[in-house]
Amino acid sequence: MILDKIHDPSDLKRLSPKKEQQLAAEIRDQLLKTTSEHGGHLSPNLGVVELTIALYSVFDTPKDAIIWDVGHQTYVQKLLTGRKDRFDTLRQADGLSGFPRTYESPYDLFNAGHASNSISLAYGMAKARDLKKEDGEVVAVIGDGALTGGMAYEALNNAGKGESKMIVVVNDNEMAIGQNAGRVAHNLNRMRTKRFYLRTKLDAKKILLRMPGGVGMFRRLRRLKRRIKYFLLNGVLFEEMGFAYLGPVDGHNLKDLKQILKQAKRLDEPVIVHVRTTKGKGYAPAEQDPARFHGIGPFDLVTGSEKKRSCTTWSDVFGKTMMELAEQEPGLCAISAAMIDGTGLADFAHYYPERTFDVGIAEEHAVTFAAGLAKGGMKPVCSIYSTFLQRAYDQILHDVCMNDLPVILAVDRAGIVGEDGESHQGIYDLAYLSHIPGLTVMAPANDVELRRMLRFALSYGHPCAIRYPRGPVEVCTGEVPEIEVGKGVVVRQGTDAAVLALGATVSAAMEAAQVLEAQDHISLTVVDMRFAAPLDEALIVEVCRKHKFVLTTEDHVDEGGFGEKVLCAAPEDVRDKIHVQAIPNGFVRQGTRCALLHAYGLDAEGIRKRVLEALR
Amino acid sequence: MILDKIHDPSDLKRLSPKKEQQLAAEIRDQLLKTTSEHGGHLSPNLGVVELTIALYSVFDTPKDAIIWDVGHQTYVQKLLTGRKDRFDTLRQADGLSGFPRTYESPYDLFNAGHASNSISLAYGMAKARDLKKEDGEVVAVIGDGALTGGMAYEALNNAGKGESKMIVVVNDNEMAIGQNAGRVAHNLNRMRTKRFYLRTKLDAKKILLRMPGGVGMFRRLRRLKRRIKYFLLNGVLFEEMGFAYLGPVDGHNLKDLKQILKQAKRLDEPVIVHVRTTKGKGYAPAEQDPARFHGIGPFDLVTGSEKKRSCTTWSDVFGKTMMELAEQEPGLCAISAAMIDGTGLADFAHYYPERTFDVGIAEEHAVTFAAGLAKGGMKPVCSIYSTFLQRAYDQILHDVCMNDLPVILAVDRAGIVGEDGESHQGIYDLAYLSHIPGLTVMAPANDVELRRMLRFALSYGHPCAIRYPRGPVEVCTGEVPEIEVGKGVVVRQGTDAAVLALGATVSAAMEAAQVLEAQDHISLTVVDMRFAAPLDEALIVEVCRKHKFVLTTEDHVDEGGFGEKVLCAAPEDVRDKIHVQAIPNGFVRQGTRCALLHAYGLDAEGIRKRVLEALR
Repeated sequence: MILDKIHDPSDLKRLSPKKEQQLAAEIRDQLLKTTSEHGGHLSPNLGVVELTIALYSVFDTPKDAIIWDVGHQTYVQKLLTGRKDRFDTLRQADGLSGFPRTYESPYDLFNAGHASNSISLAYGMAKARDLKKEDGEVVAVIGDGALTGGMAYEALNNAGKGESKMIVVVNDNEMAIGQNAGRVAHNLNRMRTKRFYLRTKLDAKKILLRMPGGVGMFRRLRRLKRRIKYFLLNGVLFEEMGFAYLGPVDGHNLKDLKQILKQAKRLDEPVIVHVRTTKGKGYAPAEQDPARFHGIGPFDLVTGSEKKRSCTTWSDVFGKTMMELAEQEPGLCAISAAMIDGTGLADFAHYYPERTFDVGIAEEHAVTFAAGLAKGGMKPVCSIYSTFLQRAYDQILHDVCMNDLPVILAVDRAGIVGEDGESHQGIYDLAYLSHIPGLTVMAPANDVELRRMLRFALSYGHPCAIRYPRGPVEVCTGEVPEIEVGKGVVVRQGTDAAVLALGATVSAAMEAAQVLEAQDHISLTVVDMRFAAPLDEALIVEVCRKHKFVLTTEDHVDEGGFGEKVLCAAPEDVRDKIHVQAIPNGFVRQGTRCALLHAYGLDAEGIRKRVLEALR
Repeated sequence: MILDKIHDPSDLKRLSPKKEQQLAAEIRDQLLKTTSEHGGHLSPNLGVVELTIALYSVFDTPKDAIIWDVGHQTYVQKLLTGRKDRFDTLRQADGLSGFPRTYESPYDLFNAGHASNSISLAYGMAKARDLKKEDGEVVAVIGDGALTGGMAYEALNNAGKGESKMIVVVNDNEMAIGQNAGRVAHNLNRMRTKRFYLRTKLDAKKILLRMPGGVGMFRRLRRLKRRIKYFLLNGVLFEEMGFAYLGPVDGHNLKDLKQILKQAKRLDEPVIVHVRTTKGKGYAPAEQDPARFHGIGPFDLVTGSEKKRSCTTWSDVFGKTMMELAEQEPGLCAISAAMIDGTGLADFAHYYPERTFDVGIAEEHAVTFAAGLAKGGMKPVCSIYSTFLQRAYDQILHDVCMNDLPVILAVDRAGIVGEDGESHQGIYDLAYLSHIPGLTVMAPANDVELRRMLRFALSYGHPCAIRYPRGPVEVCTGEVPEIEVGKGVVVRQGTDAAVLALGATVSAAMEAAQVLEAQDHISLTVVDMRFAAPLDEALIVEVCRKHKFVLTTEDHVDEGGFGEKVLCAAPEDVRDKIHVQAIPNGFVRQGTRCALLHAYGLDAEGIRKRVLEALR
């Protein structure tokens, strides 16, 4: 095994081309072995095996800084930077993270997870280097998908003028997580077909030679403009931004890759290296369906089929409800930021393509575009993961809520997400959403409530957010009263203590109530509060008056969360009865959702324990 | 007066060219008269007089939608859409807003104020129109400054692919609020000098004609690339994004403007109209110094000199402290998002240009770029207005705090800003900042405390935010103990009741204490809490134990604010003593800062009243 001899990147420099090839094959085997067992981001990593080897072979890390955008494609880097022995702990509690983590290795420069930030970070490091008159290269590696994020453009625009040497490697794999949206994708695609345009050069030449001089030329040149432009314009978009452009280069050819990276190293200006890679490279099922293997659970190596949990997820219920509503609501539109599949919108996108808008990794535009649709009389539903919606805080406040436009935010992956760790936890959304004036914030306790809340939001005529977690949906078994704005529902009437539960914690509270009754002879009231904003203040007062201990539960951090809001909304004389059960504010590392909820006392056992302690 | 006869935009269509000219002159007179008396955004409006006349003459508003980016340049539009009689109430309480406001007029499509969102909104409206099979034009008017915002790029990228007809008018006035940053500015500038490149065409032609055929051609063409590109590339950046490009056109020539807008109307695809305007046009002092007249207080019409308050502002103190610290701290860097002057950084930028980074209207990049600088060992201070920092919520959480990088956020214009109204109030920052894990959030009570806090933040080694208001600084008269993380200071020891005050409300509480003592024989304790995060919990407990009534005061909304945090941090048995004085959550319309603080009970009188009521 070559891989066993790679203890840090300096070992790469001694490899012969043949051994490099062999190393690439061994890495692919390792990637397949680990992800097929535990799941993970397979296609992106299969796509960058050679690119990673070339980068860490050509540059002198960690002195030279290599910053991976998003970071889900750093498995190969982890294997090459002394972490191969722990690689089978990937994405598990206390194991290796699936993203760069500074506490894991000096080769991981930033804790990462959100897209489009690497060029800003690299430009900052490059400027710091120059101001301190130090040397060393700074390299950002960014996918074509992340280039659709406005922040990447802000950074290119600024860094291109900045004169500091830095290298931006564009990992062009013809897709973001979903299908790549917009013109940047289109332009990159055009560059890929450079050869086609090279073939047009002879035609172009003939016409140019036949051209008469004088005044007539400009008009003819204008007519030729498009054709010649295509011929000349490889990389022009980047050159327009002030970057030298190198490429495109085959991202699976180690020799070419190393050569172009060395060339980039020699240049003394901001430079773009355009690398073409194939997502899923080397594993046929992933090459054929890279989106399915983008982030995948455990799967069968031979067939490529996922060892699926057969359960229905919250996203599935959301997607199905959107399908049902589409017929009745001709104005219903779905907006996604490169997450059509993940958010459960695949069917809607298939059957209602004209009402589906995948705007790329561009959450800011997604939300404000939805505001424009709403202004035009449509009923936009913008489905974005809680952690990524952080990008659109200002747009929600300023463009949607300050204009009181009926945009519906479907906040998927709210709460603990599990294996992706601290960069992806959806545990801050109540804090950043529920203080926004005019925004109604809901959390369903089960599948039926999610459906009802979507229907309610469509009819409500004001901005609404509905947050729901990742993973299997809680299936409703009983009756579900209609949604009424700002009204909670007592789902179990007890006498000794009460739980004011929000969203996913309602079922845990119900379970706790059953055990408390059966084992501890304690009668627990459980309230499904439904709304984080506006709060059901009357119900809070009533419950506090009737019980001596009131516990709030939420799948969210304590600071700025639901429990604190309940406490602040309660009258002074009952405040001492209210206790908040939530995640202690902080960054929560990876682990399964179940284990983490348990650790924070947010499962049935934790709620029971807390009630017992209080009543003891 | 022609202006008197313009009751709505349809009246524009009947004007002769001569009368249009006269109207433009009358509008300029009116703009000068009103802004010289009351202040306002003068230069941007002087620059778009002809453009506004042309737009509202060519298009059929409000059926055709015209969306102004930012919106501080809509004074002319207000004069033409039935609001001229109220124009002298501009920016005053209950008067006309200085920005588009939907409750003012059907011609104002969105409540606006933040930059770079108009293309997203326009694309949303265009798509809605097409889905509903309606007709009508949708026009976004965006300045070159706002084009540096990533969101504008996300929208162009998406809309260029979107096939829906819409018109983006680029109001290219060679500057944003400060100096325009980055390559987009550079490219627009190149377009402006089109004629220069036209002159090179003959050289280009000669070389092309001399060119031999065959294999050698490609190499030579590559060498020619830059030259030819400059010749061909007018507008190519936009065409790359999928937009047809028209222009540039002289934005002060009504005939040309109307012609090009009619041409844009005839096209059936997304189209960019590039309009060159001069900020401050028609008023010599503003043409010479457009930045000073961008947003100006009352000024002398003849000399152009501002009727200045001679007082020192919070921003001045910040700027001066930065100057003092620059010598001692060679790593100190200042980052601004197009607000060097407004944030008090003009001197720093002048004396330390290599350590000053004006990144353009790009708050996301600003913050993450600062994270990169910090990673590289610099000490970045990122000064952004509270309302605009909303754009960077995710970057603060994910790029700065999740990486525990010592970035200092100087949050200027925090609290009530006054005349700019609901789109600019800095009254949500405690809610969106103080729950972010690892972020220390401070608010100084006076000038000395601001200085000390900046020094403290520079030595602290972790992410810090310091929020301070717009306008005259509170001058410190007494002793100021050193800053200690998470520690408040009892600035007045009393016995009957206590105020836990944050930032600008400390002085109001002190004033209230004096009156309460002198007139009401009530002894008030006043605590300068200094930190919104982490809170001084020990001091909160102590104060609550010693007093029967404890009032928190803050220049911020109640929800998610300082008072609610104090309440939630207090032990159960003292919670009933705590009362929160804050701005009721909502959007706060324009008015003077003094009047608004008074209205919300946040001045000395309000605090005294609240204490008297509680102790009665």
